[in-house]
Amino acid sequence: MGFSEDDAANCARVFLAAELRGISTHGVIRLTDYYKLWEAGRINVTPDIRIVYESPSTAVMDGDGTIGMLPAIRAMNTAIAKARTAGTGWVAVRNSSNFGIAGYYAMMALEHDMIGIACTNASPLVAPTFSAVPMLGTNPLAAAIPAGQQPPFVADFATTPVTRGKFTFAAKKGEKISLGFAQDAEGNPTDDPTAIEHGGSMLPLGGDREHGSHKGYCLGAMVDILAAVLSGANFGPFVPPMMSYLPLLDQKSGEGWGHFFGAMRVDAFMPAAEFKMRMDKWIETMRSARPAKGQDKVLIPGDPERENEERIAREGIVLLPQVVAEMEMIGKKAGVCFK
Amino acid sequence: MGFSEDDAANCARVFLAAELRGISTHGVIRLTDYYKLWEAGRINVTPDIRIVYESPSTAVMDGDGTIGMLPAIRAMNTAIAKARTAGTGWVAVRNSSNFGIAGYYAMMALEHDMIGIACTNASPLVAPTFSAVPMLGTNPLAAAIPAGQQPPFVADFATTPVTRGKFTFAAKKGEKISLGFAQDAEGNPTDDPTAIEHGGSMLPLGGDREHGSHKGYCLGAMVDILAAVLSGANFGPFVPPMMSYLPLLDQKSGEGWGHFFGAMRVDAFMPAAEFKMRMDKWIETMRSARPAKGQDKVLIPGDPERENEERIAREGIVLLPQVVAEMEMIGKKAGVCFK
Repeated sequence: MGFSEDDAANCARVFLAAELRGISTHGVIRLTDYYKLWEAGRINVTPDIRIVYESPSTAVMDGDGTIGMLPAIRAMNTAIAKARTAGTGWVAVRNSSNFGIAGYYAMMALEHDMIGIACTNASPLVAPTFSAVPMLGTNPLAAAIPAGQQPPFVADFATTPVTRGKFTFAAKKGEKISLGFAQDAEGNPTDDPTAIEHGGSMLPLGGDREHGSHKGYCLGAMVDILAAVLSGANFGPFVPPMMSYLPLLDQKSGEGWGHFFGAMRVDAFMPAAEFKMRMDKWIETMRSARPAKGQDKVLIPGDPERENEERIAREGIVLLPQVVAEMEMIGKKAGVCFK
Repeated sequence: MGFSEDDAANCARVFLAAELRGISTHGVIRLTDYYKLWEAGRINVTPDIRIVYESPSTAVMDGDGTIGMLPAIRAMNTAIAKARTAGTGWVAVRNSSNFGIAGYYAMMALEHDMIGIACTNASPLVAPTFSAVPMLGTNPLAAAIPAGQQPPFVADFATTPVTRGKFTFAAKKGEKISLGFAQDAEGNPTDDPTAIEHGGSMLPLGGDREHGSHKGYCLGAMVDILAAVLSGANFGPFVPPMMSYLPLLDQKSGEGWGHFFGAMRVDAFMPAAEFKMRMDKWIETMRSARPAKGQDKVLIPGDPERENEERIAREGIVLLPQVVAEMEMIGKKAGVCFK
């Protein structure tokens, strides 16, 4: 597509991490979307990614309209560098696009004995509590925290009960979805997996007001504000679509998508060895909780993805035939042999 | 009780803010609990609150076993001071206790054109997903974000669907609670508002695994780790009880309760005036969303508490007769006239 070799390799690393961690909804299945965005002239493959504003512990970065992985990696590295001298580093990114899995960037902090944080806004799909219309993206938030003997704590989650993928899956199988996931175009609760295509919305974590959806709305809003209001990106309903067949919006509130990254040196709080011993004890304590009836064990955030990673590294990545066909087609167009 | 006049006034300000904002569950109704803790020798009224570790943008503070409000205010002021020079400031506190409403401290950042963040751990009441037993507190998280013409964005919420107060209220009225709020001692879903007294637990935001309780668990865990693992406080099930009639635990994992505070200078990211204009537009955009059927309008986090504040400042604070009686009794013991 015209990216430099380094940039292409960086994007590939993020796609590969998604596949290995079993988050294939954010893996190479998305390649076609990015490719079509590029064909539509909406991805800059020779970006001048640059810091446009900074302080000892902060920066704002402009992604120059490229694929999200590139400014995301650059921004996380900037946060890590700032944390080295200032104790913590915080970088807001504007003029970017979908960056894949948030956990990848948060985990970049781990080898530096830092806590990593990453979040992003996204195209509007989610209705704030009491709204009939989508105003926020699924706005995922990731945090990676180093431990000693134990594997790291890695949380990476959308601020909604489930991902949109669950809707597509249910619709294809002709099944209903649970209440608490979606509402119809009037804002009524619905179990119809095609609700979004008919003017409905996803609901924030919590599902309804009674079960705390206003808290999920707060979380999604905080991500939107840090990632986009603070960076100069489009926020809320103004975030441009990821799909090339959807028209760009008439109104803008900034440039592209927004992300927000943080790195905190643990030894800016206590000796790193002591922190890691404490984290080991935290993890062991949670693991040793008596399981609920019918459950095997209490999991630590990051456990399922790490188990996937071990299994998939051994067994290989299984791609859907349709994804293979799409990659072959892109390969043919781009003159790259897919094998 | 022996606090300095300044310290007593600071505590009173936090109690008053809770009452004015309509969060009376964290208001003077709690005075008796603190008083009894002090009678039991578990509150240090002449603390030496001090910074024990720091970097340009971080610090760890030791609360010396006093009432939570005092180290919390000191820590937030330290975070604000560090943000002035480093762009952001982050302070973890150990050896503290219950600090009242998290929102108070987050809002301290607003007059400095900073984003404020505050969170705390608390005594174990909440079961992680798949656990039969409580391992985490309700671990609230607050964020305050300045705007221009619009009032600020103030989110302040426990990482559970509802507060424990809702259980007490339902039990007193002989009503059931909704599913998704609690589980029994075996980890089965329950609608029994007395479940916690019988070995049950509160559930994290999301309620059950299907509706994303693992995300609420992630959030509560992140608060616990930042507030307590990183500060040297007791974490998870080791957090000491707030109630004097509950014995101290045999095992410790640090000192007292833990808190975590952050302050981010908005002009470490963009000119403050520009940020505030963008925040105004964010708020106006959300407010103008078409409401769901049967709803008046979409609220901005902080709206309900601000409306309470205006009303209660006008109409006065209404105390329950029992709370008045408790305060009179404390006043009598302490030689302070309650009127």
